[in-house]
Amino acid sequence: MTVRESELIDRIARALKLRRASSPEVRLGVGDDAALFRPRAGRELILTCDWFLEGTHFLREKHPPDSVGWKCLARALSDIAAMGGVPRCFLLSLALPDTHTGRWLNGFLAGLGRASRKFRCVLAGGDTTRRREISVNATVVGDVAPRRAVTRSGAGPGELIYVSGRLGESELGLEVLRRSRGPGHRKDSLIKKHLYPEPRLALGRWVAEKRLASSMMDLSDGLSSDLLRLCAASRVGACLESARIPCLRTSDIARKYGLDPLKLALHGGDDYELLFTVPLGKARLVPRAFQGIPLTPIGKITKQSELVLRDECGRERLLAACGWDPFRKTGA
Amino acid sequence: MTVRESELIDRIARALKLRRASSPEVRLGVGDDAALFRPRAGRELILTCDWFLEGTHFLREKHPPDSVGWKCLARALSDIAAMGGVPRCFLLSLALPDTHTGRWLNGFLAGLGRASRKFRCVLAGGDTTRRREISVNATVVGDVAPRRAVTRSGAGPGELIYVSGRLGESELGLEVLRRSRGPGHRKDSLIKKHLYPEPRLALGRWVAEKRLASSMMDLSDGLSSDLLRLCAASRVGACLESARIPCLRTSDIARKYGLDPLKLALHGGDDYELLFTVPLGKARLVPRAFQGIPLTPIGKITKQSELVLRDECGRERLLAACGWDPFRKTGA
Repeated sequence: MTVRESELIDRIARALKLRRASSPEVRLGVGDDAALFRPRAGRELILTCDWFLEGTHFLREKHPPDSVGWKCLARALSDIAAMGGVPRCFLLSLALPDTHTGRWLNGFLAGLGRASRKFRCVLAGGDTTRRREISVNATVVGDVAPRRAVTRSGAGPGELIYVSGRLGESELGLEVLRRSRGPGHRKDSLIKKHLYPEPRLALGRWVAEKRLASSMMDLSDGLSSDLLRLCAASRVGACLESARIPCLRTSDIARKYGLDPLKLALHGGDDYELLFTVPLGKARLVPRAFQGIPLTPIGKITKQSELVLRDECGRERLLAACGWDPFRKTGA
Repeated sequence: MTVRESELIDRIARALKLRRASSPEVRLGVGDDAALFRPRAGRELILTCDWFLEGTHFLREKHPPDSVGWKCLARALSDIAAMGGVPRCFLLSLALPDTHTGRWLNGFLAGLGRASRKFRCVLAGGDTTRRREISVNATVVGDVAPRRAVTRSGAGPGELIYVSGRLGESELGLEVLRRSRGPGHRKDSLIKKHLYPEPRLALGRWVAEKRLASSMMDLSDGLSSDLLRLCAASRVGACLESARIPCLRTSDIARKYGLDPLKLALHGGDDYELLFTVPLGKARLVPRAFQGIPLTPIGKITKQSELVLRDECGRERLLAACGWDPFRKTGA
């Protein structure tokens, strides 16, 4: 079963071979000490990296290998989307047990290759090594027009808070996956959203180009945790209307599992939707949906540095950050 | 003992705070979805990432935390040196057990901070999570004048092969460290070379700027393995003169441990010296030492795609790649 590192690198390079046209800036890719990248003139670069670890971010028995490949890149691409950028290339760091360098790796590379082609982000380099537990780290380089990147720190009191898509689906998908026997059925739409999330790249880019948002980030750990981070970076607070939060409509499965759709939407992780704030004067420019993805105003930015949730009767309560924190919760 | 991820990120950012002047291109650093980097006009970027994993690349009980911090960055910087580049910024991915978020992390950050300041490479961002085993991944962004980067693929038959420094010291240092009780003494020069390697940035840059080398790489897995990679990339072979290879002079410790200085130099890992090839016509431009680091011609590039070692009596034998391969050997 033992393969050599050089064979692994060759297989990765072959599986990820792309038309260079999708990132002509990559002058030298896999196989040298480092990659060479020639930035497009006048663009700023966006740099991000993301862990994707067995036991922490995915489960070896539950997540099919092509989902691990897809998702390790999609997660990092979501950070590029959140800045309003365009993906250019990525580096892959992969640590595998010997037992996973055959069929598992082929599945992983198939999923990674699909994401790489779909989101036009070419493999430029990386590092491989052996390890008992599967460990992946993806670094993505994107770019954006100068001063057009949207950060977390620009939100101001009175502005509207928007989210894309429907929240909590991925968390429920994970629950369905956990309770299923063996690997999950990929056709189940909840499981699919959990296994193969779609980074909101076109939306993020459009928001940045139109200068609609004063701040933006992606939802990866859950709305309550992520919104608190955006508020902290902007030194503001927020008041959310619980009735407006786009939860799961068909909550049959949620109910079956004793899960509350609103709680899933507030605290569930892995949504990879975008959260952004819009000054009142620009709110009329935000459509109800962008390329079929709903855009929903869910509340307002406030001066007080706290999160408040208002229910349909107007009652307010403080909302604690109960999303995913690797240093607080265990398991995926 | 449990800390929150946001506290960890704050501590990392504080410990790594640098004068921005050392990389004014980093427009937005730690704490947002991604970092923003404005490349220097007309420069090519060099992108590299490196695993640094407990059990594979270092030992929790033997390697002091500040060495883990220093070395995870120094290793990746060595790839920048090997291309002839200048480091600009880095991303840090850190996965730690709860028990290591206190004193161990402080030591780690102290070593990382020293390397970051010494080699003028600022922290731009990263990702942290919890894990039973300590896992580090460093992505470094460097830059270089267009078409000046030195790759592995330019070596031609008849050219001279050079190495910097003395080879095998780090491998012997690791042996001393392994056999010592508790963590090693940092003042032992062999152990020091193993714990705190110095990437040959100034040398790599000088070689690239003077256009001296037709190919270059860094020695991380051992001369026999790395030279074979350079030869494979250049579609050539090499003949080394065993008497010329800069081994350990004082081989007392090596002998005590039953280790052969030549074998240590040929197959020992973690040297982080530079290996480069020079056309005959330019050989007179290569000094005997650069800033105190010896530069030694150790053999020639040949047409046949094999590595040959010639001893002092002129006898030749094939040299197999016996350096470090994570998928072949176990342990650090």
